[in-house]
Amino acid sequence: RVLDLNADLGEGFGIWRLTDDEALLGLVTSANVACGFHAGDPATMRRTCDHAVRLGVRIGAQVGYRDLAGFGRRRIDMDPADLRDDVTYQLGALDAFARAAGDRVRYVKPHGALYNTIVADEDQAQAVVDAVRGYDTALPVLGLPGSVWLRQAAAAGLVTVGEAFADRAYTPAGTLVSRRSPGAVLHDPDAVVARGVRMATEGTVLSEQGTPVRILARSLCVHGDTPGAVEVVRRLRDALRHAGVALSPFC
Amino acid sequence: RVLDLNADLGEGFGIWRLTDDEALLGLVTSANVACGFHAGDPATMRRTCDHAVRLGVRIGAQVGYRDLAGFGRRRIDMDPADLRDDVTYQLGALDAFARAAGDRVRYVKPHGALYNTIVADEDQAQAVVDAVRGYDTALPVLGLPGSVWLRQAAAAGLVTVGEAFADRAYTPAGTLVSRRSPGAVLHDPDAVVARGVRMATEGTVLSEQGTPVRILARSLCVHGDTPGAVEVVRRLRDALRHAGVALSPFC
Amino acid sequence: RVLDLNADLGEGFGIWRLTDDEALLGLVTSANVACGFHAGDPATMRRTCDHAVRLGVRIGAQVGYRDLAGFGRRRIDMDPADLRDDVTYQLGALDAFARAAGDRVRYVKPHGALYNTIVADEDQAQAVVDAVRGYDTALPVLGLPGSVWLRQAAAAGLVTVGEAFADRAYTPAGTLVSRRSPGAVLHDPDAVVARGVRMATEGTVLSEQGTPVRILARSLCVHGDTPGAVEVVRRLRDALRHAGVALSPFC
Amino acid sequence: RVLDLNADLGEGFGIWRLTDDEALLGLVTSANVACGFHAGDPATMRRTCDHAVRLGVRIGAQVGYRDLAGFGRRRIDMDPADLRDDVTYQLGALDAFARAAGDRVRYVKPHGALYNTIVADEDQAQAVVDAVRGYDTALPVLGLPGSVWLRQAAAAGLVTVGEAFADRAYTPAGTLVSRRSPGAVLHDPDAVVARGVRMATEGTVLSEQGTPVRILARSLCVHGDTPGAVEVVRRLRDALRHAGVALSPFC
Repeated sequence: RVLDLNADLGEGFGIWRLTDDEALLGLVTSANVACGFHAGDPATMRRTCDHAVRLGVRIGAQVGYRDLAGFGRRRIDMDPADLRDDVTYQLGALDAFARAAGDRVRYVKPHGALYNTIVADEDQAQAVVDAVRGYDTALPVLGLPGSVWLRQAAAAGLVTVGEAFADRAYTPAGTLVSRRSPGAVLHDPDAVVARGVRMATEGTVLSEQGTPVRILARSLCVHGDTPGAVEVVRRLRDALRHAGVALSPFC
Repeated sequence: RVLDLNADLGEGFGIWRLTDDEALLGLVTSANVACGFHAGDPATMRRTCDHAVRLGVRIGAQVGYRDLAGFGRRRIDMDPADLRDDVTYQLGALDAFARAAGDRVRYVKPHGALYNTIVADEDQAQAVVDAVRGYDTALPVLGLPGSVWLRQAAAAGLVTVGEAFADRAYTPAGTLVSRRSPGAVLHDPDAVVARGVRMATEGTVLSEQGTPVRILARSLCVHGDTPGAVEVVRRLRDALRHAGVALSPFC
Repeated sequence: RVLDLNADLGEGFGIWRLTDDEALLGLVTSANVACGFHAGDPATMRRTCDHAVRLGVRIGAQVGYRDLAGFGRRRIDMDPADLRDDVTYQLGALDAFARAAGDRVRYVKPHGALYNTIVADEDQAQAVVDAVRGYDTALPVLGLPGSVWLRQAAAAGLVTVGEAFADRAYTPAGTLVSRRSPGAVLHDPDAVVARGVRMATEGTVLSEQGTPVRILARSLCVHGDTPGAVEVVRRLRDALRHAGVALSPFC
Repeated sequence: RVLDLNADLGEGFGIWRLTDDEALLGLVTSANVACGFHAGDPATMRRTCDHAVRLGVRIGAQVGYRDLAGFGRRRIDMDPADLRDDVTYQLGALDAFARAAGDRVRYVKPHGALYNTIVADEDQAQAVVDAVRGYDTALPVLGLPGSVWLRQAAAAGLVTVGEAFADRAYTPAGTLVSRRSPGAVLHDPDAVVARGVRMATEGTVLSEQGTPVRILARSLCVHGDTPGAVEVVRRLRDALRHAGVALSPFC
């Protein structure tokens, strides 16, 4: 079995830092690098890309709404053509640093409110699809299995890759329990690690109701914006290896 | 004789417009397109690139300081490494739209206070040179003949192209008279047109003191941010053609 | 009869201009001055406030979403507490210029997508109400009659003032026809002027269906972002005076 | 003897944090609160003002260049009139939160590159002086003794307050050793505490060369952007009290 580990990286701006990029780049196989609209200044983007390429970690474009003050976590009712152009701009900007580092942007994963919006919003999903296609038709996209975003990307001929979350509760239907519900996010490291291993080896997760749910995900999304979280990723990584799961990028 | 006409374009932001992009794209052979840091939003960048490619106008990256409020006209004492990264970011962003339009960024011309700063500032000039080289060593750069910017670019192996200004007064040494001096900018259309033709056909201009000065410029920079200015460009273009000067891009 | 004329002003940013502030300030009695989040840089704010005070025009805070690239015309799903703080910030900033000019901010009128959102969205409306109350409980608010915004403002003890639009079509229920419908905006100057006079003298307007609708508005909103629009305002102003309507601010 | 302790606070933006505001507000008597141009979003400004007022800490306006990406640490060659307006804007914005919290902005202390620039630059210093005077002629200003900034502020009739730095090396002439020189910043907590006490009790500091230098400062600037720094402030505060120095705001 083969699994990719992806994490959000480079989410600082100017003097500010958020993610522990050094630690995470040593653990994951794919890095979703912020592109400057919700986080990520050019110097951080260069540093993150240089480091990722040295370690063989794949660089993905973590595109988002133009909203530094809100960290891209607020839905913006944008004209789809404007959203397409904002995504194109971010793609090109990050690619400049990926190429300067000797590689290139390998995939696209929207961030925050944009990620959530295009799970269901067809117009915004299509805008992001159009941006990716207009940039490079061979660029895979990463997202939530079953989302409008992945469905429309596939319909447009893009390679789609689904991701799962070891620290999120699932419904029996295989969708994520809303963050507003109690128990939506798991905080117990043992539970998170056990779920991640089960997802990778059996392809299932237990829903909130205890029923097994089929999870078809080539990539596991992990979080590293707190010191404790990095430690969980380390443990998860070790456990996956002991279970015979090979960690390797999906692209 | 062959001459390029270059102009600043796409210098709006969001709802705001500055340049008459439609009119200018029909007149010039090279378009310095703003890249989003001092002007130029993604939708404007796409529109400008699409239009330029349709008309065969070359797309240049008009990179500038991150300063929307000051339109990039205020010198910022930046760390050179940060400046290099800001330029790389802008280059990549514009290139995404140029490529989506079927072409690519063909040259680089810094804007405003950055243009003026790197006439003499070696650290900032080198930062821009490093950004261009890191992006594409085959990318020509456009600037003021005799500037530190062009000298260091050439030393780094980049192709350099000098430009002249038909509407600016020159010193006997061949440098531009400071905008703060009276008479630094010519406003009489007839004088501007005559100077442009003389520059193209004889390779000289009369200095403030009336002495002929040698001008070696493959490109003439024209301004179009007022309706009257566009008309001057149109007349200059016609006069150049009548004088047997072929208008064609330098790259 | 007494009527206020209000218009959006100071809607440039940096080098960019949108509204013909000079012309409008000579015609209106209340100026909705942009506060820097969707438009309006500090220098423009000072100039507009200075000019308004010299002419006796009242200064209102045209607060908006933090969205320069979208001119505040895109709804943002903000946390209400954050929206309240963004509005407080803008209120204080504009007030500094109003006070430096010898007057003060006299009223608040939200802009663009925020204006439209709080017609119906209770959380965001309450956030703006809370910002105004926290700043100055004596500050009147201007808005659409019947909106959640004015209703909640009144419930919070604020003075509310309704406005009407001479260039917009009304439904028989007295609400505005959506801009997306054909005929939503009237472009015939004669019709606009006639409707404005009727609103002021009879307190009614003919709906799309031709039925008379009661309009209770102490203020008429006029637009001036095109040269033609300024001329319509001038004619409307003259026609109102001939009809015996005194133009005077509502506060 | 009476001394004020001032520190920079509220220097986050959106999701990002820099200073440990909670810890510092319990230790200092004056808080230099960032106003949104180089750091400080509206929600942070409200929270910081609310907390400061509850603890009796004075709120000062930490005004800076409009430069989030550079944290206001890069000199910008601004037109003085534009700088004046940028400062006025920030003053008004912060005052809105100070007043909502039941107090008001009590003083002004420029930040970063602006602080350094107006030590010597007369035009930019006068621009800040003009902004303060135009806002409130009774507002004290805090800065480096001997600076052009304080001299011009005093000449304009403003109350000026000098500050000293317990962790910075001084020249025999009483100016700060440039940060670029080795030994410019002291890192040994014992040395910093001892110097602070000596400054407060004897009004002197030993220069780099070991000669005593007269320090006339009503306020001591402390830094708290690292956990260790907060602990030094706590020790300094205790040592000052043991030495009989009363800590109280200067305004």
